[in-house]
Amino acid sequence: MAVGEFDLIARWFTRPARRSPLGVGDDCALLRPRPGFQLAMSCDMLVEGRHFLSTVPPQRLGHKALAVNLSDLAACGAQPLGFLLALALPAVDEAFLEGFAQGLWDLAGAHDLDLVGGDTTAGPLNICITVVGEVPEGQALLRGGARPGDDLWVSGTLGDARLALEAFRGRIALDAEAFAQARAAMEQPQPRVALGLALRGVASSAIDVSDGLAGDLGHVLRQSRVGAVVELGALPRSEVLRRQPQPLQAQCLLAGGDDYELLFTAPASSRDAVRAAARAAGVDVARIGHIDDSRQLSVVDGSARTLDLREFRGFDHFGAGPAQS
Amino acid sequence: MAVGEFDLIARWFTRPARRSPLGVGDDCALLRPRPGFQLAMSCDMLVEGRHFLSTVPPQRLGHKALAVNLSDLAACGAQPLGFLLALALPAVDEAFLEGFAQGLWDLAGAHDLDLVGGDTTAGPLNICITVVGEVPEGQALLRGGARPGDDLWVSGTLGDARLALEAFRGRIALDAEAFAQARAAMEQPQPRVALGLALRGVASSAIDVSDGLAGDLGHVLRQSRVGAVVELGALPRSEVLRRQPQPLQAQCLLAGGDDYELLFTAPASSRDAVRAAARAAGVDVARIGHIDDSRQLSVVDGSARTLDLREFRGFDHFGAGPAQS
Repeated sequence: MAVGEFDLIARWFTRPARRSPLGVGDDCALLRPRPGFQLAMSCDMLVEGRHFLSTVPPQRLGHKALAVNLSDLAACGAQPLGFLLALALPAVDEAFLEGFAQGLWDLAGAHDLDLVGGDTTAGPLNICITVVGEVPEGQALLRGGARPGDDLWVSGTLGDARLALEAFRGRIALDAEAFAQARAAMEQPQPRVALGLALRGVASSAIDVSDGLAGDLGHVLRQSRVGAVVELGALPRSEVLRRQPQPLQAQCLLAGGDDYELLFTAPASSRDAVRAAARAAGVDVARIGHIDDSRQLSVVDGSARTLDLREFRGFDHFGAGPAQS
Repeated sequence: MAVGEFDLIARWFTRPARRSPLGVGDDCALLRPRPGFQLAMSCDMLVEGRHFLSTVPPQRLGHKALAVNLSDLAACGAQPLGFLLALALPAVDEAFLEGFAQGLWDLAGAHDLDLVGGDTTAGPLNICITVVGEVPEGQALLRGGARPGDDLWVSGTLGDARLALEAFRGRIALDAEAFAQARAAMEQPQPRVALGLALRGVASSAIDVSDGLAGDLGHVLRQSRVGAVVELGALPRSEVLRRQPQPLQAQCLLAGGDDYELLFTAPASSRDAVRAAARAAGVDVARIGHIDDSRQLSVVDGSARTLDLREFRGFDHFGAGPAQS
């Protein structure tokens, strides 16, 4: 093979560090957090058929692999600093690597991020990124802070990624423009980093919606020991999704997966502050319900009904969920 | 499938945190380094056929997956704090997970480590661990610090892992006891964490030998802009390896891979300090040569000869190196 492991790293995955003393090339990356800050770390592994389809353009895959990790930092209100990339590749495919690296670096550049370490190996395609960010001591947004009476909010729109998946599977038909739009939502999610930062000190809890709204909200409810009422009609959706049958809309909105929007709670007295944070971040937010002390998730549509949490438990990578296979 | 993703995490990969505020269960792990310390991070991905054989007992695989990462911290002189585990599994195999988790937790416990985050997914078996450690500001052992005149040292013994691989491949025959010993070296490497810590302020450079002595020494020479003379006869080896033919011994010692010993340099004036550090860490060290300003690696046996660095460039995961396939 013409290109070896070290050539591969040098050619596609080495750029000058933006932040000292971060950098690739020794046994470890060294990070010096600012005084008064904690480091926040998260790790996501992407596997073909589960997190992306073989049809994804490499540039979008590079973007998505980093985006889903930045989304975790966003959900904690952390400022991204750098990331480690571990990559298993079936072969050194230059066209793939060129596109993948481009998508990765474009998003890294937009967030002023360094690639500080990692690993490459031959093997079935697998992308594992660990992101590192910083957050002022004690200010991280956590899942356990929701309180009865809090408003429940979500950013952006939900469900388009799942809609694209249904179209890829041939279960629904979308016209070309609608498909392109839904597909972009699935393949190029925008991590809500700026919103996460703006919500520090405003939101009482936060999580990113990666496995479906109902499932991820379930994590917040369990960790906060509270319940919630969600108004189905208030869930923000694209025009494309709005044109779909109601049951499909509900499925995509509540259990879609791959949304990478922020789901967060804030006291009702903080509505102006939430809206100001969203404006500052340039992201739409919608108030979709409220927290109560019921320990249950109720979804209210025309006829109010309470969902069994298990009905919409969200994407389970070992269950029969909507894996992209 | 009976066991889902969250059950899997709860059952096998959740233990109370030893160090606050580390812990699993939110979008990110939060780490608070001590004042005056830097964080050191490293990430290794293990793939079947490349980093382990299908014959490896799960408990040893759990050990090894963490050990190879701790070895990177050791090479930086960093004190391990925690790790993130990303795991792709073809299926939820309870016997495998039970053994794997046991090996992982045994080693984590021995180093007082927390599992602070990670990810699990269905997919071809892949283990990606990111370790985090801390090191006093400016005291990390780096690859670029070797100076002409420094002694060259290595810990433990070299080559047994490669010997086991040759036996697994049927290229050599070992008696049962020799095979068991070589196999243990391959499957259960001991990360030299205590030695790395003891060498802070003593060693001028360090790296862990993961891809073969010659290849890894090459990294040190390039980054330090120096050369080295290695005495082949001084390379520490087990009794098992000593019984093999000389050419095989040389291959295993110089380009074996999977040794996870520390290769380090120190001024000749520090020999007593090096030996004291080794005693404190309970690890044997051997002086195997010295650094010069030649920019070349020379290996001296009966008849001194200079090796082309490319001849023993070490394990390349995309080259024709000694992958465990």
